[in-house]
Amino acid sequence: MNAPTTHLHLLPVVNQRPVPLALIEALQAQFGARCSTALVVREQHGRDESSFDVPPPGAVVFARSTAEVAQVVKLAAQHNIPVIPFGVGTSLEGHLLAVQGGISLDVSQMNEVLSINADDLTVTVQPGVTRKQLNEAVKSTGLFFPIDPGADATLGGMAATRASGTNAVRYGTMRENVLALEVVTAQGEVIRTGTHAKKSSAGYDLTRLMVGSEGTLGVITEVTIKLYPLPEAVMAATCCFDSLADAVNTTIQIIQLGVPIARCELLDSNTVRVVNQHSKLGLPESAMLLMEFHGSPAGVQEQVETVQSIADDNHGSAFAWAATPEERTRLWTARHNAYFAGVQSRPGCKAITTDTCVPISHLADALLDSVAEAQEAGIPYFLVGHVGDGNFHMGYLIDPAIPAERETAERLNHQLVERALKLGGTCTGEHGVGLHKMNFLVTETGSGAVDMMRAIKRALDPQNILNPGKIFTL
Amino acid sequence: MNAPTTHLHLLPVVNQRPVPLALIEALQAQFGARCSTALVVREQHGRDESSFDVPPPGAVVFARSTAEVAQVVKLAAQHNIPVIPFGVGTSLEGHLLAVQGGISLDVSQMNEVLSINADDLTVTVQPGVTRKQLNEAVKSTGLFFPIDPGADATLGGMAATRASGTNAVRYGTMRENVLALEVVTAQGEVIRTGTHAKKSSAGYDLTRLMVGSEGTLGVITEVTIKLYPLPEAVMAATCCFDSLADAVNTTIQIIQLGVPIARCELLDSNTVRVVNQHSKLGLPESAMLLMEFHGSPAGVQEQVETVQSIADDNHGSAFAWAATPEERTRLWTARHNAYFAGVQSRPGCKAITTDTCVPISHLADALLDSVAEAQEAGIPYFLVGHVGDGNFHMGYLIDPAIPAERETAERLNHQLVERALKLGGTCTGEHGVGLHKMNFLVTETGSGAVDMMRAIKRALDPQNILNPGKIFTL
Repeated sequence: MNAPTTHLHLLPVVNQRPVPLALIEALQAQFGARCSTALVVREQHGRDESSFDVPPPGAVVFARSTAEVAQVVKLAAQHNIPVIPFGVGTSLEGHLLAVQGGISLDVSQMNEVLSINADDLTVTVQPGVTRKQLNEAVKSTGLFFPIDPGADATLGGMAATRASGTNAVRYGTMRENVLALEVVTAQGEVIRTGTHAKKSSAGYDLTRLMVGSEGTLGVITEVTIKLYPLPEAVMAATCCFDSLADAVNTTIQIIQLGVPIARCELLDSNTVRVVNQHSKLGLPESAMLLMEFHGSPAGVQEQVETVQSIADDNHGSAFAWAATPEERTRLWTARHNAYFAGVQSRPGCKAITTDTCVPISHLADALLDSVAEAQEAGIPYFLVGHVGDGNFHMGYLIDPAIPAERETAERLNHQLVERALKLGGTCTGEHGVGLHKMNFLVTETGSGAVDMMRAIKRALDPQNILNPGKIFTL
Repeated sequence: MNAPTTHLHLLPVVNQRPVPLALIEALQAQFGARCSTALVVREQHGRDESSFDVPPPGAVVFARSTAEVAQVVKLAAQHNIPVIPFGVGTSLEGHLLAVQGGISLDVSQMNEVLSINADDLTVTVQPGVTRKQLNEAVKSTGLFFPIDPGADATLGGMAATRASGTNAVRYGTMRENVLALEVVTAQGEVIRTGTHAKKSSAGYDLTRLMVGSEGTLGVITEVTIKLYPLPEAVMAATCCFDSLADAVNTTIQIIQLGVPIARCELLDSNTVRVVNQHSKLGLPESAMLLMEFHGSPAGVQEQVETVQSIADDNHGSAFAWAATPEERTRLWTARHNAYFAGVQSRPGCKAITTDTCVPISHLADALLDSVAEAQEAGIPYFLVGHVGDGNFHMGYLIDPAIPAERETAERLNHQLVERALKLGGTCTGEHGVGLHKMNFLVTETGSGAVDMMRAIKRALDPQNILNPGKIFTL
């Protein structure tokens, strides 16, 4: 966020729709100081964790209710001006950038936990509630919400990008965990999708259409999600391997055997090194799996024995246990900070992050060849992976002042995605398409499927005012 | 299927589009005898397990490939004639009926298991493969496909209705288990949705938009689904209760405690009686839970102990075990035949089946009051439930020759749905909307959400040729 903007990747600015004074005045009449045109506020809302640079939005509105969100969208629709929903700005793919100008609609003040339905293992929140805030709020119920992208993202943003994280291998992603939504449409109408029942066959699955739509089909104003009983027993361990291949093969076998492992994360030796530096850990600097097991005491013991035996067969070390809750928290916090540790390991750099996900049997092919290519290219990188899901991230650490580095990183990314798609995988397991993966999306799904997405977008947002220019161009 | 058609529920026939001779000739030129206009074939394709009566489709085409499906849709589009995908005809909601006339597109001959990817726990099948055929085909891999609507439905039909069944409480529904689809659009184009990766954030979730769209957005021509390792240990048991309330409360507590029970099915005493008669079982004729536990031997033992203790607290009997695989199969086959057992218990009757699903904490409220109402009305009924999901089915057994009985059943159904919706539930947990629940859908989701569905339908099928008149009217 603090890197000099002049070194960021400049996007061609097309279809800019400058915010007219009449709209600003109407918003200020309604929202007073909660509609800001101050440059610092606009710049703060015109940047995310991606490496793109575009002009900031014309104004920022801080909404406090669904009705206010609807008002903003209706006013914007009257003036044919884009609206870009904004939570806490942790997107990695440029989702929040005002590529066609417009209003950044900040919902971070809509951060109430509306109802905790412990008896049904569900909770309903406003979109600005963050995952850590949610888990704090439900702590006394003995339940928890497992989905944990690295950043402390909002539930609205997580729903909009179909986010996941380290626990997805056991608990699924936002796709599996959102039950119902309240959404403001492009016409400023408020609709509800889904119910609080566990399953339903009632018409088109609008909930899952909205989940992952990246703010292009509606503004999410309420999210109902599943909670899970805190496991009776939790054990976390690290296991070191001489080679990445051994760690990857261990993972593949764990999944193929159906072990209900709760977390199965990979770090390469270089990433362990930067994580050690960043988080003051003393982990052995080799390829490593970070694992967590949830269940009854006996069930956890069974899982641990199975996994240790698989690791043994693949030349893994004995498990090192994070015995106390505090040690576990320290370990997983360090894992969640791996992205920042990676970026800080090269001062002034920007990370170009990959996000492919492949069928588990192809994980070794996908991952090892991509690592070999990065090593050959000589570019600094970090490597972390939700490998239990077949999902891993390379972060190419480029000097934004050296165009050749960006080109190398983009070439490597391109090769990596092409490989994943050939292996039956996806260009993005959890970050979304945003600005960066639009071409990959066409390669992945074919133009027919993208045309179907376009048709849906045109039908629901004929003025193209909801986060335009993301996922695909119209 | 053999009931006299004259006693079935007559729907107002509107927007009939008679199939022109030119289209029949074009189809026969292409498909020869696989395009049939014989009355018996058309009638066979103009009826499902629902109690509606409409004129049969104008022709039936038996397709053998995706290319042939595309040809049929393109020809139908040229003539602006409906196309109704047909598998094996087990829909309960009138999905297969040619309410606007048109071509029944039978895909039951597209029944190849295309690829078993045991290393990735996935399989790709043509839409006409049935769930039993699939499980037979993957048997040697040590994997299985858990989703089991009562009938031996096709995977294409199950995807189209977002089906589930007895195992959904543990393994989810078609919503959670379809990874990727091949679909023929209303324009006769072939698209692919999803990938073989476990998760993805690549654009709109077209897979889940198609799943549950009841043939109105595309014709499913290929389905890639998840498989699961056969559990190391399986134990099935029945448990009797003095009252329905005790059985329901046991279920609620099992789910709230997070027991990973694989099946948790309720039958009331009357249904046990008709199942006994139909399947020659000697089950005690009281309210009963049929349960199954999957896991490691120790894990199963833990689950059993927990559940037995909950049942004890609710005045349940000791478990009666289905010890051998054969006994288990007999028990679950009987459960799957409960619908037919119910219907056969009153010769000449038709069943009006309900399908509400509520948040688990409200299951007792939803179920017990509905039973009390049915008893008060004096109408014969059966009651079965995937109660672990909060989903249960009343089958009101009406004499189709007595209009007052249908009226009573419809009134009871109406009250039951209204109650479920008030409790945060859905009008249909797994059967779909079809013809029967269109009004309920509006009550459930609100007209704004149904309008959004309509907008999507119009965008993807502007001629309204794909299974028109289902889910909503345009």
